[in-house]
Formats: sequence, C-alpha cells, structure tokens
Amino acid sequence: MGVLDVIRKRKSVRKYKSDSIPEDVLMRVLEAARLAPSAKNLQPWKFIIVKDEKIKEKLVEACLNQRFIAEAPIVIVACGFPNECYAKQGRYMKSWPIDVAIAMEHLILQAAEEGLGTCWIGAFEESKVKEILGVPENVKVVALTPLGYPAHEPKDRGRKKMEEIICYDRYQ
Amino acid sequence: MGVLDVIRKRKSVRKYKSDSIPEDVLMRVLEAARLAPSAKNLQPWKFIIVKDEKIKEKLVEACLNQRFIAEAPIVIVACGFPNECYAKQGRYMKSWPIDVAIAMEHLILQAAEEGLGTCWIGAFEESKVKEILGVPENVKVVALTPLGYPAHEPKDRGRKKMEEIICYDRYQ
Repeated sequence: MGVLDVIRKRKSVRKYKSDSIPEDVLMRVLEAARLAPSAKNLQPWKFIIVKDEKIKEKLVEACLNQRFIAEAPIVIVACGFPNECYAKQGRYMKSWPIDVAIAMEHLILQAAEEGLGTCWIGAFEESKVKEILGVPENVKVVALTPLGYPAHEPKDRGRKKMEEIICYDRYQ
Repeated sequence: MGVLDVIRKRKSVRKYKSDSIPEDVLMRVLEAARLAPSAKNLQPWKFIIVKDEKIKEKLVEACLNQRFIAEAPIVIVACGFPNECYAKQGRYMKSWPIDVAIAMEHLILQAAEEGLGTCWIGAFEESKVKEILGVPENVKVVALTPLGYPAHEPKDRGRKKMEEIICYDRYQ
C-alpha cells in the first residue's frame, strides 16, 4: 500500500481481539518509530511495551477507564526527554512533544500497514501512568496506544475541507 | 512502496531543484496532512503554502539564514491553534504541538513517496515568521519545510539502537 492508502486505512480502533502479535510484525512497527526524524537527530524518546495483564489493567484506570485499552495484547507508552531535546523550536519551545508525536505516528502508520489497530490516547493522568510504570521525574509521557488486531470496523470520522486548512503566501 | 520503505527513503533534503511541483502531486501531499488524526478530531491546524519568491527570501532570514529553504519552489508553514485543541493531553498540556506534528509528518511522508524532498525546520524565529505571513497572535507556528525535488542525495544519519529506545512493562 502507498502512504496515502495507509493514512486512509488508519482509524482509531476501540475494540480489539486478544490475538497476539508476531514478533517480526512488532519489530517492524517499532522500527518505523526508531527511524523517525527529530530535531537535531536527538531522538529524545522511549517506548514502553506493556504486555503484562495487571499493568495494562492499571493503565486503564490511569486512562480514565477507557477499558478497550487493555483488550489489546500490547499497550505502547510513548515517553519524551525534555532534557535531551532541541530546546529552541521556533525559539519558544522544547521539541520533545513534536519529536515523540512524529515517532509515534510512524509506529501507528506501520501498524495500520500490518493490519493492526491503534488509537492515540491523550486522555490520561500522566502522574498515574508514571507511577505505574516507574517513569523518572525528568521524563514526560506524551501519549499511549493499544496495539492489536481490530475487532470492529471503526466509523469514518469527518475532516475539515481542504480549503479550510490551507492558504497561500499569507495567513488567511 | 510500503510505509517502512518510505520512512527509510525520507531524509532531510538541503539542496533543491527549482522544478515546479505538479498540482495533483501537491494536492496528494496536502491530503495526507488533511486526513491526519488529532485529539478529539479537532484538527487545530493550518498550512500556509508559500510560493512567492520574495516571501520565501524573507522566510530564509527568519530561519537563521538557512538559504536552501528558498531553493525549493514551495515552503510549507505549519500552524497550530492553542484555542481550538484538546486542552488536557496527559492532564498537563495542550495537544496542538502533537496534532500539528502528526499532520506535518503525514505530509512529509507522502512527499517522500512522491519523490519530493522536505526538511523539518525547527530553527526559526517564530515572531519573525508570524510577522512575514500575518499569522494571528493566537496561532502558533510549529515548523516549516521546503517542498521540492532533491538536488542531492542526503547522507544517512544514524539512529539509536532498538534496545536503547524500547523497554518492557516498566521504564528501564
């Protein structure tokens, strides 16, 4: 599939089969993240691969009880390093949220290509996730995603029209 | 090409041909951004497509004189909307840097698929870019990229090893 086909295929999956993920498939999904670009190539990220059932259950609680998260055989937790990133993106911010988002979306697109479902989880209590997984104080949790074979066909959600999101030469 | 092939092919291009980009190619590149996921599907983004030579030259100055930016026929400026995004990512941050990064990387991967070069530009003076393009006060500039046909084969930059960027069940 081409990139645009995969982008069209990717949807937020909220029901998962318990089927396990072959190791070679998982490694290709992670490789897509590993190869992501980042500001100054600093790669300020770590991905925690949670397979333990009890830990997944705790993560559900930390994610406002979104129960489907624990249905998937794996939950991936994307972390960023504020102290090891480019500190001057646009001269006003640290690059880690951008860097980690790029790598996570690589992972998610490769998952879609492999027939796996994912769902960007932004609704979580970072402090709880950090406590559950032992994430150090100076590391941020950017997002999570379940990773598993879809047990439903998600609905297509609309998008803004092209003319709403682009303009030429000046902001309009 | 599969996603992983495109990810391997994508490199930061810092020399461009002046050849123009066919409209259908540009539209597929933008469509990849348009279809990106975002927190609560709020799509808090706008992409400014700069073709005007004088404006491109001004952007070079706002980007710490990275001259190659203006070689490309198009410069794309990715903007985010702090007032129209999910305000509680992880219960600690607004989602716009993440949302815009995802959409921009979609654009960049589709560009690679089309044989176009890009380069994430994070080294810029946001205040200057905003002034040049008339970006409103409540809108943020997240990043820029030139978009054009590569005039060189960029070097492969290394990446951390897989075992450095992943861990299992707990942060390690």
